[in-house]
Amino acid sequence: MKLYEETKKEQEIFRGRIIRVHVDDVLLENGSASKREVVEHPGGVSVAILTEKNELLFVRQFRYPYKQVLLELPAGKLEPGEDPFEAIKREQKEETGTVGSCYIPLGEVYPTPGYCGEIIRLWACRASGEPGELDLDEDEFIEVERIPLDKAVEMVLNNEIPDAKTQIGVLKTAKLVEQGKL
Amino acid sequence: MKLYEETKKEQEIFRGRIIRVHVDDVLLENGSASKREVVEHPGGVSVAILTEKNELLFVRQFRYPYKQVLLELPAGKLEPGEDPFEAIKREQKEETGTVGSCYIPLGEVYPTPGYCGEIIRLWACRASGEPGELDLDEDEFIEVERIPLDKAVEMVLNNEIPDAKTQIGVLKTAKLVEQGKL
Repeated sequence: MKLYEETKKEQEIFRGRIIRVHVDDVLLENGSASKREVVEHPGGVSVAILTEKNELLFVRQFRYPYKQVLLELPAGKLEPGEDPFEAIKREQKEETGTVGSCYIPLGEVYPTPGYCGEIIRLWACRASGEPGELDLDEDEFIEVERIPLDKAVEMVLNNEIPDAKTQIGVLKTAKLVEQGKL
Repeated sequence: MKLYEETKKEQEIFRGRIIRVHVDDVLLENGSASKREVVEHPGGVSVAILTEKNELLFVRQFRYPYKQVLLELPAGKLEPGEDPFEAIKREQKEETGTVGSCYIPLGEVYPTPGYCGEIIRLWACRASGEPGELDLDEDEFIEVERIPLDKAVEMVLNNEIPDAKTQIGVLKTAKLVEQGKL
């Protein structure tokens, strides 16, 4: 049996500022009809920024869907037509005031593939000096925080950091440092 | 400045079988008005199942939003009112035919907190014997695959497995084994 679902019809439900939602009529693997609910997003970027003292830069911000302040790696969404690597350098500058070097790709993250098509692209990099002046969007309020890499790994392993890209970015960055690659 | 956004009004856009979408009028940290697009989901569960030979059990399935077959840890969504731990044991039995022991919680995953409120709860466990007969939903088509834990870790570190919960589950499980906890 080939694992494949065929789109028969797409019905757009919502086109917002961040997401687009559609419900599709599909034919399943066994030929029967079903519906799939899909959330589309332009794509995200995120970066684990390691200072000369092996601290990682995090941002704290209020995340409305959870009504919680979360600790996350700096991240943002792609502007239309924007190159992901240019986007992450832009977001890094805006959210932490740093310029990085030695960028290493940490791959793609598919956050929740049952109903969402977003792709988050991750990097690790080095940054010298202190976090500088921020340049935030008008609806963006964040606090920058540095945490030693070893401590951040402990926090992830102790299940204290729920954000998916942050867990992945921290663990992969620690592995790169352990291997002498970053 | 307190990191907090106040809900003024919620407008429901869509109530589907899997997700609910609403757009809220909010007051931001600086008192200005804005809108937040929110996708709600009943919650997910997932488990890293380790065999006696230190292989992990994965499922391959077609993920409609990406139009790709993905390699993932077994997972599912909570039924209304269902206890998450009961849910993961149910999903594990349905998707792999195995019964686990020595369950260790691997924490929560917030897949994409900018616009989505889903919480995925993760576990690792041991399972003895072979994967058994599957008991799938009528719109569910999957293939079970075993991959040695070391190989799975390599695949995650080589950025060959994009699914977020799977990357996190594999790396955390490897750490538990390394520490002699699982």
